[in-house]
Amino acid sequence: MSSVLIGIDLGGTNIKVACFDMDLTLLTKTSVTTGAHMGPEVVVDRICLAIGDLLAQQGLNLTNLVGAGIGVPGPADYRAGIIIKSTNMPAFQNVPMKRMLEDKLKCSVAFDNDGNVACYGEFSVGAGKDIDDMVFFTLGTGIGCGIVSQGKLIQGATGNAAEVGHMIVAPEGETCNCGQQGCVEAIASASNTARRATAAVKAGDPSNLKQVLDNHGEITCKDVYQHLAQGDALATRITDETHKALAIMCVNMLHVIDPACIVFAGGMIAAGDTLLNGIRNHFDKRMWTLRKESVKLVFASLGEDAGVIGAAALARDTV
Amino acid sequence: MSSVLIGIDLGGTNIKVACFDMDLTLLTKTSVTTGAHMGPEVVVDRICLAIGDLLAQQGLNLTNLVGAGIGVPGPADYRAGIIIKSTNMPAFQNVPMKRMLEDKLKCSVAFDNDGNVACYGEFSVGAGKDIDDMVFFTLGTGIGCGIVSQGKLIQGATGNAAEVGHMIVAPEGETCNCGQQGCVEAIASASNTARRATAAVKAGDPSNLKQVLDNHGEITCKDVYQHLAQGDALATRITDETHKALAIMCVNMLHVIDPACIVFAGGMIAAGDTLLNGIRNHFDKRMWTLRKESVKLVFASLGEDAGVIGAAALARDTV
Repeated sequence: MSSVLIGIDLGGTNIKVACFDMDLTLLTKTSVTTGAHMGPEVVVDRICLAIGDLLAQQGLNLTNLVGAGIGVPGPADYRAGIIIKSTNMPAFQNVPMKRMLEDKLKCSVAFDNDGNVACYGEFSVGAGKDIDDMVFFTLGTGIGCGIVSQGKLIQGATGNAAEVGHMIVAPEGETCNCGQQGCVEAIASASNTARRATAAVKAGDPSNLKQVLDNHGEITCKDVYQHLAQGDALATRITDETHKALAIMCVNMLHVIDPACIVFAGGMIAAGDTLLNGIRNHFDKRMWTLRKESVKLVFASLGEDAGVIGAAALARDTV
Repeated sequence: MSSVLIGIDLGGTNIKVACFDMDLTLLTKTSVTTGAHMGPEVVVDRICLAIGDLLAQQGLNLTNLVGAGIGVPGPADYRAGIIIKSTNMPAFQNVPMKRMLEDKLKCSVAFDNDGNVACYGEFSVGAGKDIDDMVFFTLGTGIGCGIVSQGKLIQGATGNAAEVGHMIVAPEGETCNCGQQGCVEAIASASNTARRATAAVKAGDPSNLKQVLDNHGEITCKDVYQHLAQGDALATRITDETHKALAIMCVNMLHVIDPACIVFAGGMIAAGDTLLNGIRNHFDKRMWTLRKESVKLVFASLGEDAGVIGAAALARDTV
């Protein structure tokens, strides 16, 4: 009898669901609208319907399902499998998602936050494959993180390890949404890179980005990197601050975790080598001279599938 | 037949050796001069003689020895059990200490750096007992660290994890001995707290510490804390900078590791509640508002025995 795994990536807008064999080869996948406003029961039903369809496409049913995994946005009680609340899904409060899925799917369900799950995907079959100690960052609206040490995700005492977006890298810096001062996320996420550029343009710093602001009403992180490529002085300064903050974060992670590899994912990696070389330049200057060989900085390789792959891998390896 | 464990704490001046039962109850201990200048063979002979004596005191011999553990100063190849070099023991270069001990003791020997070993001691029977996620700092000449996550020491890809003394907490700060700029150790270790006070006095900052410098030719970290207690303004500023740097380090470790407990050891903890409250005040101000309960900050409880206990515990749990 065929044995399969299911990976689920729960987002505020869409739910991705995919079916894998035990070697994590993708068999089939789908995406459905979350419909979070209709409440958790409806969302769980949608997930289970989607799983049923995927299994049926393979001529399979729930009896073939060895395990499932789900990545959810935090904050959650990861040990208990409960979504405590969600910015993007206000109807979700104290939802025992793990138990609800297990009741319907009749199998164990691995439950973790979306950063950890995507990290575990890259660790299992992506940019961190065969690397037992790795650090993973998603550079997007916020900065997400996952850490694999000796082949296992670091969870922490309360399931809140790897919240490295809130590492303080500029003690006298601006206040973050979280209330702390000088978090790396407050400087170097895509949205805060754009925010700093916008503030500088509004303050009168000369830049061609002013046209973007005037024409579109906003400046995006992508705009800033495009203007960097054109040699715009303000874009150069803003992105340099972003790269410096990310580099300090990487130096610090090296001293804490000693990873063989730091993997970057998320929207910002569309900036390509400009981003990676920018981080690497500051990293090489700031990293101690005793250990110049240091660590590999690379991009993630799984793209948007990292979440479903990681969720299925967690199901295989931990439940 | 009685089963016992041996813990060894190798220092540049003295070697501590202790014998434990399988529950880590101390049976007997001793300390011998290292004699590092006579070379590794002699040092290994001294260790093994000391072990023989301890066993004989209990009416035991090597056949009763289940395992031994040793904590060594870095840098070392911890996987291979080789001391690469040692500042305090220049005659030690590429010494296969683990194998040399195993050949003589006819048992497996756990080998790790002194920070990790002391951390594992506090985790096993000290301030971190029954706490699966803890961070341990020794505040002395340098800042040492050990990290236990899900009940296991974090080693890293090259055995160099938990070098948290070199976390950057002041990006525009002074250069550390390691070559980096703004390491927490360059600000907040005992020797650098004393160094900053000395420099300020020499630069003419008014302080009663000037008398100490004039009379003794140096200012120690202990002097600085004594003058803090007397309300000296310079001592207040210097220690506040120390506490702030340590607090940022703790906030960052909370976001990476999510420990239930942060344990402080080393010479500086003689400053008592002044130190702990100083760190806690900055920690509470800088730690995010979402998680005020946060983490326990406590002192180590095993004193100088942490190393031998931790080495024996590692022997029991890992070999």
